[in-house]
Amino acid sequence: MSETYSKLMKYLDKSTALETALVLFQWDSETLAPEKSMELTAKSIGILSSEYYNSLINEDVKSLLAKLGEEKEQEQLDFNQKAIVKKLRKTYEEMEHIPPEEYQAYQELIAKAPGIWTKAKQEHNYPVFAPYLEEIMDYNKKFAGYRVKEGQNLYDVLLNDYEEGFNTKQLDEFFGKVKSAIVPLLKEVVKKNDRIKKEFNYQSFDTEKQKQFCSFISQYVGFDLSKGVIAESAHPFTTKLHNQDVRITNHFFEDNLESAIFSVIHETGHALYEMNVDSAITLSPVGTGASMGMHESQSRFFENIVGRSKSFWIPIFSKLKDTFPEQLKDITLDSFIKGINKSVPNLIRTDADELTYSLHIIIRYEIEKMIFAGEAKITELPDIWNQKYKEYLGVVPPSDSEGILQDIHWACGNIGYFPSYAIGSAIAAQIYYHMVSIMPFCQYLEEGNLAPIREYLKEHIHKYGATKNTNEILMDMMNEPLNPDYYVRYLTEKYTKLYEFCTVKSSKKK
Amino acid sequence: MSETYSKLMKYLDKSTALETALVLFQWDSETLAPEKSMELTAKSIGILSSEYYNSLINEDVKSLLAKLGEEKEQEQLDFNQKAIVKKLRKTYEEMEHIPPEEYQAYQELIAKAPGIWTKAKQEHNYPVFAPYLEEIMDYNKKFAGYRVKEGQNLYDVLLNDYEEGFNTKQLDEFFGKVKSAIVPLLKEVVKKNDRIKKEFNYQSFDTEKQKQFCSFISQYVGFDLSKGVIAESAHPFTTKLHNQDVRITNHFFEDNLESAIFSVIHETGHALYEMNVDSAITLSPVGTGASMGMHESQSRFFENIVGRSKSFWIPIFSKLKDTFPEQLKDITLDSFIKGINKSVPNLIRTDADELTYSLHIIIRYEIEKMIFAGEAKITELPDIWNQKYKEYLGVVPPSDSEGILQDIHWACGNIGYFPSYAIGSAIAAQIYYHMVSIMPFCQYLEEGNLAPIREYLKEHIHKYGATKNTNEILMDMMNEPLNPDYYVRYLTEKYTKLYEFCTVKSSKKK
Repeated sequence: MSETYSKLMKYLDKSTALETALVLFQWDSETLAPEKSMELTAKSIGILSSEYYNSLINEDVKSLLAKLGEEKEQEQLDFNQKAIVKKLRKTYEEMEHIPPEEYQAYQELIAKAPGIWTKAKQEHNYPVFAPYLEEIMDYNKKFAGYRVKEGQNLYDVLLNDYEEGFNTKQLDEFFGKVKSAIVPLLKEVVKKNDRIKKEFNYQSFDTEKQKQFCSFISQYVGFDLSKGVIAESAHPFTTKLHNQDVRITNHFFEDNLESAIFSVIHETGHALYEMNVDSAITLSPVGTGASMGMHESQSRFFENIVGRSKSFWIPIFSKLKDTFPEQLKDITLDSFIKGINKSVPNLIRTDADELTYSLHIIIRYEIEKMIFAGEAKITELPDIWNQKYKEYLGVVPPSDSEGILQDIHWACGNIGYFPSYAIGSAIAAQIYYHMVSIMPFCQYLEEGNLAPIREYLKEHIHKYGATKNTNEILMDMMNEPLNPDYYVRYLTEKYTKLYEFCTVKSSKKK
Repeated sequence: MSETYSKLMKYLDKSTALETALVLFQWDSETLAPEKSMELTAKSIGILSSEYYNSLINEDVKSLLAKLGEEKEQEQLDFNQKAIVKKLRKTYEEMEHIPPEEYQAYQELIAKAPGIWTKAKQEHNYPVFAPYLEEIMDYNKKFAGYRVKEGQNLYDVLLNDYEEGFNTKQLDEFFGKVKSAIVPLLKEVVKKNDRIKKEFNYQSFDTEKQKQFCSFISQYVGFDLSKGVIAESAHPFTTKLHNQDVRITNHFFEDNLESAIFSVIHETGHALYEMNVDSAITLSPVGTGASMGMHESQSRFFENIVGRSKSFWIPIFSKLKDTFPEQLKDITLDSFIKGINKSVPNLIRTDADELTYSLHIIIRYEIEKMIFAGEAKITELPDIWNQKYKEYLGVVPPSDSEGILQDIHWACGNIGYFPSYAIGSAIAAQIYYHMVSIMPFCQYLEEGNLAPIREYLKEHIHKYGATKNTNEILMDMMNEPLNPDYYVRYLTEKYTKLYEFCTVKSSKKK
């Protein structure tokens, strides 16, 4: 190993250890820690966070990274080491230009803002949150300004943090295509909406039984309990200490059957990605998904393309009926599949179906762009939001709590993050058309044999972690970068044909 | 605040943050982490442990501690700060004389030894473990040798680590009194053993119902779920992040009712101590119990003196009967109380009743002393163990797994630790006689009003954390240091009268 690289390793190992501790604190606070714990625990978390920052941002690391950029050093690095150095340099560049006192003030702001947001949302009181939102946006503009490149716009700097190589120009084209296809399609779908019955989903379902079924289906999809944990939290999420310890959560509602089932399949998709990252890189800065969008592609692939297909349910629908024999006694597989795919425009992103989901994202993307371009004042956002919901989805929030205050993301400082959700859906569709062209995809599902599907994803996506970026992965896998046409095709095929059939069709069968 | 002290605070805050993270990792690994997690997680734990060591043991801290020893610095410190400096100096002195390479080698040894011990115990194969035990004992002798004082013996150095101010001379006297009282008493008790029926305890008890009852009884004793968590693990234990986050575990056996109940009361006793430590010191080196023995006094006080008394069960026995109406339908409160207090000499310390418990401890204490005095070879320990069990308890282990291999403590390097268990029992009895002399103790229990009892313990013991040592606490509370006579009196009264009555009698009643 290069001597310079092994010096760098010392810092990396320390930062990984601290990051692992911070992940565990976060997990614990969302799943288990008692109500009154956080005030004191936050003090330790603050100290460890600052140790983490200092372990990466310091003069030693700076000069090691500079040295590792030299040609004769590069020659000594293998593929993974190069990727680690590259990723570290990116993190370094994101952080080093921010003056420490501004970083500290911003950290305090985004530690406080989610509490204010929660209060504002509870009280339907946007003006309480607006000054914080303005400050958060201003900091993000300022921070982006420190590292914006010639000819780049500020918002692109943030987009690039979440999706390397993506910018407004591409996303405008991407969302333009999606919007022009979905908005009219949705209008057609909505007209026929009441043909699909979904009442079965809203009966009373014992949550202990839901829990057992969700544990079963997560393992059926591929979750390995010897390397993972399933717990509960207010909002489902996935996290990991490393590839041998991947954790997901779920939530249960007695009056909604599909919520927990599709949440756990979604999180299992994320979890498979993390469990399959190569062991050589798991405890390193590239030991996670390639990007937010790539990660979301895996969760959505399993949740929607696999999980909402008829083929997937053929081997296991009887198990669900056995779990809830009374509630589902008159429900056929076909009526179940139609029910879980029913599209109804609504106000809440996290409750959205596949067809309307991207419209929720487009609205947020357009608003973020307007803010960064100085085309919208913070005080005007509620009206802009409501107007766009009316135009794209045909619904209007009764209050700002269902409108501009809907998501926690901005309060946490996640700006430029929403587009990744839509990119994920688009990647999932593209992967799907690729996979049905090379393997008997449906047949595997119908046989309850998900291993070849998982194995393919592992070999072409998961194992690389973040050593390759999104487009590199897609190019290596199918010789084509992200192409939104597949996503449009998928939604159009699925939702124009929904009332005739709802299965995943493979173009080839062995 | 003294300038020197505030410099020290920076190191203390860092070490507290790292220690909190290590506690959380430990908690997680024993309650939740998946089976395959530990190999990789251990790497992060190792790095954080070494950061912890370095945050306390370094030249800066050394010179700050030296400076804080000067008179004009001492004058600027308040009571808590003085205690923190004293505790830190003790930790420092325990560690600083050990050469880092020996410390490292020893840490590796005691990381490995519990695995070897587990294997040896499973396979009834002491010779596999013996060389490790020898090495651990040799290291402990060597480490004690680095800091032994003039006229002190090596074993006293270790005893003093767990119980400040205690030594072999005192303990010999203490255990001598206990042994000479208990061994003959036990012989009498055993003769009448079969008069007490305990079959009711070994029926089938739904573990979910046990869990609910244990959660109830823990809160009844005082556990506050807004500042704590109850979970499950192989062996029950208590841990804490700070006084707002105290965690206990329990274990459940379908065929044993009392095991989980008295485990949870025991751990709740530990938890109350930690929850009541003053907030001013909770995130500091003195933010925990005064000593192992003092801690154990609180768990045993609640488990045995409170929890096994008739008065305690008067208000809640009907709730237990309602939980298991079939199994307990013919059991009266009196027969229940007799059953849970039945004394039967057995081989396993953790299953021992109140009367025989100390005999298990005495055996371990005598063996540790012999090893340190060079009076026993490691290879001879199984025979010595078995001979002592025969003599004191009248039972002989069928194999070394129930004998010399019974406890994990030595494999973890905890030498000189066992006596604290007995000291804890003795302190509990002493506190009991003190409390019945100053408050209507039984009446409170019979009224289900435990608050005044908790409050008294909080004000005289808990809130001080480790700012005072065991004897200082006892002296301030009742003007008398540890006195084993109370313990002997307690056991004698309880077990000579057991077949007539079993309630806690208060000497005063309002």
